[in-house]
Amino acid sequence: MKKAKKKIKAAILIIGNEVLSGRTQDLNVSFISQWLNTNCGISIDEVRIIPDIEKKIIFNVLDLSKKFKYVFTTGGIGPTHDDITSLSIAKAFKVKYCFNKEAFLILEKFYGKKNFNDGRKKMAKMPFGCSLIYNPSSAAPGFKIKNILCLPGVPIILQSMMGNLKKYLIKGKVVIEKSVSLYTVESNIALELERIQNRFLKKGVTIGSYPFFRIGKVGVSVVLRSDDKLSLAKCYNDIKNMVLKKKIKIFK
Amino acid sequence: MKKAKKKIKAAILIIGNEVLSGRTQDLNVSFISQWLNTNCGISIDEVRIIPDIEKKIIFNVLDLSKKFKYVFTTGGIGPTHDDITSLSIAKAFKVKYCFNKEAFLILEKFYGKKNFNDGRKKMAKMPFGCSLIYNPSSAAPGFKIKNILCLPGVPIILQSMMGNLKKYLIKGKVVIEKSVSLYTVESNIALELERIQNRFLKKGVTIGSYPFFRIGKVGVSVVLRSDDKLSLAKCYNDIKNMVLKKKIKIFK
Repeated sequence: MKKAKKKIKAAILIIGNEVLSGRTQDLNVSFISQWLNTNCGISIDEVRIIPDIEKKIIFNVLDLSKKFKYVFTTGGIGPTHDDITSLSIAKAFKVKYCFNKEAFLILEKFYGKKNFNDGRKKMAKMPFGCSLIYNPSSAAPGFKIKNILCLPGVPIILQSMMGNLKKYLIKGKVVIEKSVSLYTVESNIALELERIQNRFLKKGVTIGSYPFFRIGKVGVSVVLRSDDKLSLAKCYNDIKNMVLKKKIKIFK
Repeated sequence: MKKAKKKIKAAILIIGNEVLSGRTQDLNVSFISQWLNTNCGISIDEVRIIPDIEKKIIFNVLDLSKKFKYVFTTGGIGPTHDDITSLSIAKAFKVKYCFNKEAFLILEKFYGKKNFNDGRKKMAKMPFGCSLIYNPSSAAPGFKIKNILCLPGVPIILQSMMGNLKKYLIKGKVVIEKSVSLYTVESNIALELERIQNRFLKKGVTIGSYPFFRIGKVGVSVVLRSDDKLSLAKCYNDIKNMVLKKKIKIFK
């Protein structure tokens, strides 16, 4: 895996009516985002969820492709009529939508010649010139074309494929996170947090503050993120001092 | 609530580094989408998740505002330094960012004059000319400006506020959903599903097919959606006949 010196920013494009309608709860954003940061030092900077409509897929694939180093799509590469991601991406890049020989052989072997019906064959149709992302769960591969990496929508299958797309990515700087959960409310620490944030902005530390409700108690999680360990530790120290000074209890 | 004859399409803009980094699992998309469809006949047609960066908020608010009837934002209206949604939206629409008198009075009453500190006062600062969305959980109101409706990010607070924004919306046609879960795999029914979909496309029924894995069993949920009850029932009937013909078991 090659290494880049600067931050690498990527986007996720979730293709699926079922996520937009609220029927299916998306679980892929948090998984992909954490996996990419931890394993590749790549940050997700934007996510879009769009319906299974060809012109919307084409528009968003091209738009995000220009704006980000990588775009990860999820959904729409299965065997049914509503799986139109591969065809739409072929149209977006103006390449043929045809059988990928390697994918065809993988699927034929997996299902057996007798059971390799048209629906299953459809999963071997991809944009011409793409590279495969192997699928150890259910055989049907994802693919990479230009800077677009196409994955299925089913979380357990997607998760099993992440290791196989690593070879297509350049490694960036891993963002480290440190957090502390406090028995307080945001407005009690807002002023101090802002002061600390201002001191550490140029050092590349971002401070987030997130209220939470746990077993009847209210609290705030203060989350620090940076790719620089030392600055992160210093910032964390300032937060701890603020907590001591204000006599705020820490959630264990 | 006024009624519109045609479909009303809306977007959700999730503002928050914590969702992008994968630290926080978004739960608002599915709730807002289902609530809007059931209560107002409004469909969510696009979702974007973006970081707490002013220029990104401004760009996406203006972009989605042009493309959709309504835009629902979540997150970034709290008391801390990383809550920049209200300021950014004021800048997007080139109006003043200042105290909203009504919001100020609500918050002052809620906290009491003595405890009404700067962080808490910040939650009363909004784009000039906006209307309030009352908050029965934690007092701090959301607001509506142009076709943008701003809500907090914490799910239980957001959920408690939905009823209070209904008055700002025009009602569209409710999309009805019917689904059946089958003991089969997608590729076994792909061809028949496509034929049925083609017959019902002009009648406004969309058929989605979603594989699932439940207690060691694999299956497919076939989901029909339409705002026309009769066409939906006819389409469902065709699906049932296909299931009978192919001797596929139905999940109970």
